[in-house]
Amino acid sequence: MEYKFTRKVEGLKASAIREILKFTGQPGVISFAAGNPAPEAFPVDKISEISAKLLDNDPVLALQYSITEGYTPLRDFLKIKLAGEYKFLKDDELIITSGAQQAIDLSCKVLCDADETLICEAPSFIGSLNAFKSYNVNLVGVELDDDGINIELLENALKANKNTKLLYLIPNFQNPTGKCTTLERRKEIYALAQKYDIIIIEDDPYGSLRFAGKDIPSIKSLDTDGRVIYVGSFSKILSPGLRVGYVSANREIIQKITVCKQTNDVHTNIWAQIICYRFFVDTEFNVYLGNLRSIYKNKCELMLNGMDRYFSENVKYTRPDGGLFLWATLPEKADMLAFCKKAVEEFKIAVVPGTAFMVSETEKTQSFRLNYSTPSDEDIIKGIEILGNLTKNF
Amino acid sequence: MEYKFTRKVEGLKASAIREILKFTGQPGVISFAAGNPAPEAFPVDKISEISAKLLDNDPVLALQYSITEGYTPLRDFLKIKLAGEYKFLKDDELIITSGAQQAIDLSCKVLCDADETLICEAPSFIGSLNAFKSYNVNLVGVELDDDGINIELLENALKANKNTKLLYLIPNFQNPTGKCTTLERRKEIYALAQKYDIIIIEDDPYGSLRFAGKDIPSIKSLDTDGRVIYVGSFSKILSPGLRVGYVSANREIIQKITVCKQTNDVHTNIWAQIICYRFFVDTEFNVYLGNLRSIYKNKCELMLNGMDRYFSENVKYTRPDGGLFLWATLPEKADMLAFCKKAVEEFKIAVVPGTAFMVSETEKTQSFRLNYSTPSDEDIIKGIEILGNLTKNF
Repeated sequence: MEYKFTRKVEGLKASAIREILKFTGQPGVISFAAGNPAPEAFPVDKISEISAKLLDNDPVLALQYSITEGYTPLRDFLKIKLAGEYKFLKDDELIITSGAQQAIDLSCKVLCDADETLICEAPSFIGSLNAFKSYNVNLVGVELDDDGINIELLENALKANKNTKLLYLIPNFQNPTGKCTTLERRKEIYALAQKYDIIIIEDDPYGSLRFAGKDIPSIKSLDTDGRVIYVGSFSKILSPGLRVGYVSANREIIQKITVCKQTNDVHTNIWAQIICYRFFVDTEFNVYLGNLRSIYKNKCELMLNGMDRYFSENVKYTRPDGGLFLWATLPEKADMLAFCKKAVEEFKIAVVPGTAFMVSETEKTQSFRLNYSTPSDEDIIKGIEILGNLTKNF
Repeated sequence: MEYKFTRKVEGLKASAIREILKFTGQPGVISFAAGNPAPEAFPVDKISEISAKLLDNDPVLALQYSITEGYTPLRDFLKIKLAGEYKFLKDDELIITSGAQQAIDLSCKVLCDADETLICEAPSFIGSLNAFKSYNVNLVGVELDDDGINIELLENALKANKNTKLLYLIPNFQNPTGKCTTLERRKEIYALAQKYDIIIIEDDPYGSLRFAGKDIPSIKSLDTDGRVIYVGSFSKILSPGLRVGYVSANREIIQKITVCKQTNDVHTNIWAQIICYRFFVDTEFNVYLGNLRSIYKNKCELMLNGMDRYFSENVKYTRPDGGLFLWATLPEKADMLAFCKKAVEEFKIAVVPGTAFMVSETEKTQSFRLNYSTPSDEDIIKGIEILGNLTKNF
């Protein structure tokens, strides 16, 4: 038979990153294309110990149906933690989601009707952009400058799109650019959100992975009106395979997200939720996090040192203070897509072309994304030298 | 601030079952309201063993990001299994989902636009009905008779709703009625699906839990056109806390579901997928399943024996050959909602009023659902006697 799909998914394509990732599975390919945490950083022994103890002592808890809102001790722990990091407003609530991805998807589902406008940074995280597209929202990208989303362009976009409901931002070590939004800019953004009465989705998977400079208060910490939805994740600080994230927002919003989550997957894998909770309370979490940060700091420095040494001076790149990514920009005359294609096909170095992160893949960009968390030190040294030599023509 | 939610979630309410379940947490309440597998049936030792071995030998596989389609050995295993149970068509594909709930949600998301019609059995599984409602489809319920969905009423509904896209059915031990659709009826349903060119979602969480009578071929096994989406689950045969299900359909449909799943939760918890796979290949699965079936057979007989003995002869009820539920119907003069309320509030026996399973909760029904898989044998004996005495007035 012939299938007729919904308007929601007609234009939805598999992520372009996945196409690149096909090459990364081939032998001998050095991949800077992934977004995976460093595999050597997984606290395997501790997770094994917690898991064994749980299945010994509380097997029914780990295997039976659970509640949609999530494992109560984990929720309570996160509420207290967030109340310390930002004032958890009187009417705020928090639920556990199946990764931050689900929190982002459902925030859009409950708040943004088809054809209403959602503004995001351009470039931005492809998984979120696709989630938004799957609800047929009017997705509008606004360029970043060095301080975050460009505030003048943002106001222009708000003026031009009177039906804007949501503003999606990754203020800390943004994916794909690695940029951090300054405190001043965060305040300006929040003021604009008030002026135009819109809601901000603050996606913060990388905030704990700062390895240089000082922490910047979240936009949620500036929130007085309940207009910020804060999304957190265990993927980058513990394990992405567990698929555990969370979302904190006004309880009215959380209630709607909860009924939608119930229709989505009933609840998040409960074993994984308990692992996250017990890992927090059973370990010296700050010591663990300190170690994780120093791993990423070293890898990032290794990559930047190689780029400083081997890249053409006509290639510009960000110098992130945390997170997993940096963003390199070729000079105007270069053909970025041809460069990325040549790098992987002829020289077996995979990077992600910047087009993958644009609101529309047909938009022009001279940039590509590099990941330093997944490759080994040896591969970073070797791969960056090869890639650098390829930039020498520019 | 004031929130304006989307049309999708405006009318969506938390499941009425959850309201009843609040009472079940209170001390002394005997609950026949849940839909949980028997906790004593969880193969805890085997799961612990598999989990420990996995975290010892393959920790990065279990903790790192994985692919959206699911763990390849599990997918391949299921494809071969399903090819044996029904002919897996040349163009069929299969992916792993976060429980069957996600497969049902995404099938609707990719195939049924807002205001298009989706026909379901009335009563039906509340989680699916809410998923469908969250996409603003025109949800039309068609009554069941003893052989399954009433075929004459189904054709009337198809004639009355020219824009019907989907037909959602639970042919084996339907939730909430426990009814099984006969082979003859399955053939008639498939013929109607061909005649009106619609797609069937065949939800089969309970098919393996047959403890009496003979297996009936799935509707998917009758499929020649690729118009059946078959949804399976590990929740009732292994563990619901793992949140692992799967969906098999034409590869065009599966591709669309896959890109939507990517925006939904990236992939299903990979530890849980590997547990399911290894449990299948490392154990005598049929022996395990035989034991499970005999547990449910005994519990079901225990409940039916009590009902035969203590229930008013004016109360009718189904006698299921498998699954987790049976469906009792009070005589016309009885006030069903008042009966359920009195049962839980005064006599501490929780059942689910049938209204919870109707397309609209305002529809009238004299029935309520009883679950025999979760309560202990003692609670079944005690609770059914109390409930039976409550029916004596009718």
